[in-house]
Amino acid sequence: MSEKKTVEKKILSRNDKIAAELRQRFRDNNVKVLNLLSSPGSGKTSLLEVTIQRLQGEIDLAVIAGDVQTENDALRLRNAGGKAVIPIETRGACHLDAAMVRNAVEQVQLDQTELLFIENVGNLVCPAGFDLGEDMKVVLVSTTEGDDKPLKYPAMFKRAGAMVITKTDLLGLSDFDIDRAIRNARALNQDLQILKLSCKSGEGMDQWYDWITGLLPLKPNNES
Amino acid sequence: MSEKKTVEKKILSRNDKIAAELRQRFRDNNVKVLNLLSSPGSGKTSLLEVTIQRLQGEIDLAVIAGDVQTENDALRLRNAGGKAVIPIETRGACHLDAAMVRNAVEQVQLDQTELLFIENVGNLVCPAGFDLGEDMKVVLVSTTEGDDKPLKYPAMFKRAGAMVITKTDLLGLSDFDIDRAIRNARALNQDLQILKLSCKSGEGMDQWYDWITGLLPLKPNNES
Repeated sequence: MSEKKTVEKKILSRNDKIAAELRQRFRDNNVKVLNLLSSPGSGKTSLLEVTIQRLQGEIDLAVIAGDVQTENDALRLRNAGGKAVIPIETRGACHLDAAMVRNAVEQVQLDQTELLFIENVGNLVCPAGFDLGEDMKVVLVSTTEGDDKPLKYPAMFKRAGAMVITKTDLLGLSDFDIDRAIRNARALNQDLQILKLSCKSGEGMDQWYDWITGLLPLKPNNES
Repeated sequence: MSEKKTVEKKILSRNDKIAAELRQRFRDNNVKVLNLLSSPGSGKTSLLEVTIQRLQGEIDLAVIAGDVQTENDALRLRNAGGKAVIPIETRGACHLDAAMVRNAVEQVQLDQTELLFIENVGNLVCPAGFDLGEDMKVVLVSTTEGDDKPLKYPAMFKRAGAMVITKTDLLGLSDFDIDRAIRNARALNQDLQILKLSCKSGEGMDQWYDWITGLLPLKPNNES
């Protein structure tokens, strides 16, 4: 398999170069970038829908929405009021890479954007290795999955800056133990920030909005 | 990316050759093989736990349990009473391949096995392309994921022989529309068999057990 490893290494090094360029462009434009990662069905799009509804108008948001096939997520986010939503259809590929993001970024007015969400393909394995120039990887785990997900997909949880536990309204309906999930994640990554929320009941959403807005640089008109 | 494509093609053709050998060995030993696929957290291991508890003793079961890291699933299945449970830790790889299964099969007494489950890595993208010599791919979708999963991960649903909708006890707690999920899947694959069940409430489990046992060849002592 050494031929495979060599090609993988080349692809990753090419990716990292483009990601570094992207990171510089984002910094030059004061754009904060969050790369959202999870299993399919953990609620990335639902979280973005309510976040757009709440924060649009207050901060300048853009979303790059990746999917293996269909532009369903991008359509949902536009229906939620998203003004700058760019779809990426990977056509079979199991993760976004920096070149795909670079193409999509051509359609984003960076100088008019404060926060860019990149919604990655639903997959806890492959996207972990691909830097997209983001400031932080944010990994979602829903309470209807197993609380051992961090142990089973450690690369993702090691590289994330924050873990968002979603669907807390469904806690108690399965064996998911929220403290065990946090313990499992922190064992891999002691600096991991933790948020808990439910888009449906609204629980924890204010903390999520505060956390996001806290990541942004103060605007001149907020400073006095 | 043509270098990547060439290597991918070579890997897949090498895989298909091993898978064909495996398929022949399974047939020679009258072993029925189901390759279980889903997102992380859709309930593959839970379904296998209750299936082992119910069917072991009645039919000769073996399980090959794949995980990116940890042998948690294999431990759970042994705790559930599984006598022949072989773990595969892929150490980062996002899917099982036929060579991994061939190694694991060395530890399975095929001549004393009627049904072999292969629990794939939790991932709706990459495992779709890898034949493991199975008789059928069985894809699980839980009611806490989106009902558009078939549209977003079409390769998986096109290649599956059956779709199992899990966690039906949680229907109504999210926007998941079971009829829409089935419509979306059948639009890609009109021959797809559909099962609906909840390991927790027991709903649909008898149909699942009947379906599995119906796949097996009649034993000589059942024939008269």
